[in-house]
Formats: sequence, C-alpha cells, structure tokens
Amino acid sequence: MIDSHPYLVGLVGAGVLPSLTPRMHMAEARALGLTYVYRPLDLPSLGIDPDRLGEVLAWAERLGYDAVNVTHPCKQSVLTHLDRIDPVAAALGAVNTVLFTPGGRVGYNTDTTGFAAAFTQGLPGASTERVVQIGAGGGGSAVGDALLRLGTAHLTVVDLDPVRARALAEDLATRHPSAVVDPGSPADLPALLAVASGLVHCTPVGMADHPGMPLESDLLRPPLWVADIVYRPLDTELLITARERGCRTLSGGRMAVHQAVDAFALITGTRPDPERMTAHFLDLVAADDVLAR
Amino acid sequence: MIDSHPYLVGLVGAGVLPSLTPRMHMAEARALGLTYVYRPLDLPSLGIDPDRLGEVLAWAERLGYDAVNVTHPCKQSVLTHLDRIDPVAAALGAVNTVLFTPGGRVGYNTDTTGFAAAFTQGLPGASTERVVQIGAGGGGSAVGDALLRLGTAHLTVVDLDPVRARALAEDLATRHPSAVVDPGSPADLPALLAVASGLVHCTPVGMADHPGMPLESDLLRPPLWVADIVYRPLDTELLITARERGCRTLSGGRMAVHQAVDAFALITGTRPDPERMTAHFLDLVAADDVLAR
Repeated sequence: MIDSHPYLVGLVGAGVLPSLTPRMHMAEARALGLTYVYRPLDLPSLGIDPDRLGEVLAWAERLGYDAVNVTHPCKQSVLTHLDRIDPVAAALGAVNTVLFTPGGRVGYNTDTTGFAAAFTQGLPGASTERVVQIGAGGGGSAVGDALLRLGTAHLTVVDLDPVRARALAEDLATRHPSAVVDPGSPADLPALLAVASGLVHCTPVGMADHPGMPLESDLLRPPLWVADIVYRPLDTELLITARERGCRTLSGGRMAVHQAVDAFALITGTRPDPERMTAHFLDLVAADDVLAR
Repeated sequence: MIDSHPYLVGLVGAGVLPSLTPRMHMAEARALGLTYVYRPLDLPSLGIDPDRLGEVLAWAERLGYDAVNVTHPCKQSVLTHLDRIDPVAAALGAVNTVLFTPGGRVGYNTDTTGFAAAFTQGLPGASTERVVQIGAGGGGSAVGDALLRLGTAHLTVVDLDPVRARALAEDLATRHPSAVVDPGSPADLPALLAVASGLVHCTPVGMADHPGMPLESDLLRPPLWVADIVYRPLDTELLITARERGCRTLSGGRMAVHQAVDAFALITGTRPDPERMTAHFLDLVAADDVLAR
C-alpha cells in the first residue's frame, strides 16, 4: 500500500469562490496520483474580516493545512505572519503562497515567477528591451518585477493615477538599479508605443464585467508584442485586436497556469507538467463558460 | 473531467496520532476513486485544551472540513456543539461522528452501530440471549447499547468499580425497558458465565501496554462466544485462550473496521466495501507491527 502524503491546501482571500486555481491543482494532483484537497476559503462568505488573517493562518496550520495561496486583500498583510520570506517575494512586498513547514511559515510569490515563466514560454525570443506597462496595482507590481528580472532595460509604468504610477516606478527602479523605470500617463501612450518592443496590460479592463479596450487600437502594430494579465475571458478585446493587427500576444491564462505550476511545485516538491496543467485550465474555463451561459 | 467532491475529514481527540482510522478511510476512498484527506487532530500535540472543542469545530467547519470523527475525551462534550443528534447517539449520550452540513452539524455514533455490524457479520447465528459484559466505560456503553438493540434479553455489566457498573446498568435498562440489565462484580463471573451465551470484554486489559487476561481462563468454555473490543493487538490473550478452549470469538478489529465503514458511509453517502476495508485495516496493522519491531 503506497501511502504518499495527502495534501491539504487553501486559497485565502475575498471573492475566491469562482477561482479556477483549486480545481487546477486538484486535477494535476490526480494526474500525478497524489491525494490533494484544495479548498477556497472566502473570507467575506465566512464572515471573517481580513484583519483576522493571523487567526485564519494559525487555525489552518493547526487543522493540518500544508499550505495556502493568499490573494486580495491579503497579499501584503500576510507578510507580518510569516517566519521566512523568499527574497523575490520580499523585494516585491507581496506573498501569494505560504508553506506551513516544521521550521515555520515560509512565503513565496508565484505571481511574479509565474508571469516570468509564462512570458518565456509563451513569447519565446520576444524582446524585453523597452516595455510599456499599463496598470500600477498589485498585478502590475508582480509583472513589472518579473519583466525587470527578465532583463527589461527600460520600463514605463502607465496609470490613470499619476501618484500610483510614480510610486510603482520608483519602487521598481530602487529594486532594479541597472534599469530605467519611469512613470507615464495614458496621454503618453502613442509616443511610448511607437518605440516599445512590448506592451503589458495589468488593469481589469477587458474582464467580463469590465468590457472594453485599455487603449486606442491603432496604437497596436508589429513588432510590438502584447500581453494581458486578464484571463476571463482568455481572449480579451485587447488580445483579439492585437492579433488581428499582426502582433504576437500572450494571454493571462498562461500567467494563471504558471502561478499555479510554481505554487504546486513548492507545495508538493513535485514539478507538475505545465502542458497538462494548461489543458486542465482550458477544460475548466470551457466548463465554466458552459455554466455561465 | 469528473469532478466529484473532494472530502476533508478530521479525527479530534487526545492520543489520536497512532489511529489507523484516517489511513483506513483514505485507502478505501482511493479504491473508490474519491479524493479524500483525513487528518488526525491531536489536541494535546496542538496545545489545545479539550474545553476548546467548540472553537476547534467552528474552525474546522470554516476551513472546509466535511466532517470529523470525535474520540476520547470529547465524545460526550461534543453533544452541546451540535444542531441535531441521531436518535441512537442521543440515547447513548455519545457522538463519534459529526457531519458539517448546510443545514447544521449532525452527530452520530458509529461505535455502537459498528459493534452491531461487526457482531452480526463476525458471529453469525450467535445467541444474544444472555450476555456478560466486562467494563462499564465509554466503550462498554456503546457495546451494551448495541447488544440490547440486537435483542439481548439479559445483560450483566461487570466492573471493578461497583458504582460505575450500577450506573451503566441503570442507564441501559432505562433505554431498553424490555430487557433485564443488572450490575455485577468480578466475583460473580463464574456463576454468570456458567449460564451465559456470550462474553464481551470492554476494558484496556490485553492491549500492548496493558498485557494480561481480564478473567480466569477456565471460565471460558463452549458454547460461550467471546468478543473483545481491544484491537491492538488483534489477537489478545483473551481471544487466543478462548479459541484454544473451543469458543467462537470476535476480535476488536471488526468493530474498528465497522465504525469506520459506517462513518465513511455517513460522510460520503457511498457505502464502502467492508471486506476491502478489512483488508486495508489488516495491511495497516501489519505495517504498524513491522514499524514497532
């Protein structure tokens, strides 16, 4: 009787019930022959204020959880509840994966490692020389950091809110002193994109409940590549338009898959198959789309 | 992609870490193709006082547990934390299985239903007319109740502590008014066993750390059947001696398996295969014996 460790994992945050991450992990575990239960732990549905995150983590640990993924609004606040933080996550100031180990709680950020893996695999050979990023929120922070680790020499952070754009640009510049990171406004996009190698979109525009385009479509033209972190729908108006206009594109689905691939590897010590995990993800998206109709 | 519910179950109590129940459930779930994680939640190891059982149950429920088995010292105290109690468990005043359902927490006792099933399957056709029970603790209470439900007309409860013997006898008599239930002392055993159809042993004597026999071996002679609720070791000195002297016997292992069979069925709504679950149990006992050497 083979008795491998049965895994118990949670996803802590607000609005996590529709997340595909738990089912993606469980489908991959099943394919690997691992016993793996992954529960969404939606704080609002449980009537638990995000201030009580420490209590949630303490009880998850007592009740036999191996790990939790952590998402909005807990990715920053979780830092104070950890014993050790991976350097990439510490630099970013955000953690989305916590392992409960015999030696203490250890935090990682697989949003940023997941974007880097998605980019490398989804846009092989694409130039990272000069990149424009739209959106300076939490997703933008993880993506900007990943691009700079991948060697981007010049990153411009564009946001409707100039204070937020400047704050993230300064933050990224401090962590990556060999790169030029500057803030920008939407009005700068025509000039910026005329000389950029790529565009990354990190706002909610294009999601099912925020339809639309984050910029004028005639700004999209090869050799610009276009990446979106929105993944519901997988084909956002931005990506459809960019492809129609001949640009290479990277969907948010790849980042969603690779953050899960990296988290699964940290939790189990077993590297999952990214292609199979992508297939699970596409199956789940298709099943959800059917349900939503 | 078949997405059956992934089960999360715990075993709450003191000294539960060596229990075979979690691994028995998980092995059967695996055989049925179910995803099933079953965690021992040992209160002393967690530094949690048994008085905080209500808090443990509340957090287990919040953190996505489907059910818990409850054992010493919580089988009685758990009653105040439930919304509904199965009539058999309520009569017994002890619960070992709690389901967290959308309609509230429901308590059951599969120790008593498990003993009844073990008896019916392990000693088919055995007379329950006149039974002597040694031990008036929690195990004895569940077993005595099962025997009376199975039709025992005369049950004598023997305990070294006459107060405890009388209290359980009165309790059982109140719940089963058509039967005669009386207390007895060890000195009465020769006279009692001379006319009894069966003997059930419900004290720790014969366990690995309490070796020995609970009575004189020459009191054991056919047609008396002999049942033990001790299951570590499976073959207690009592059962070995009884078999040598020609008595039919029932080991505590069958009760351990059937309490798990009944709990598994309540938790999943799927009736497990008792023969296969017995095989898991024997595998686990054998594996533990190897480790203990």
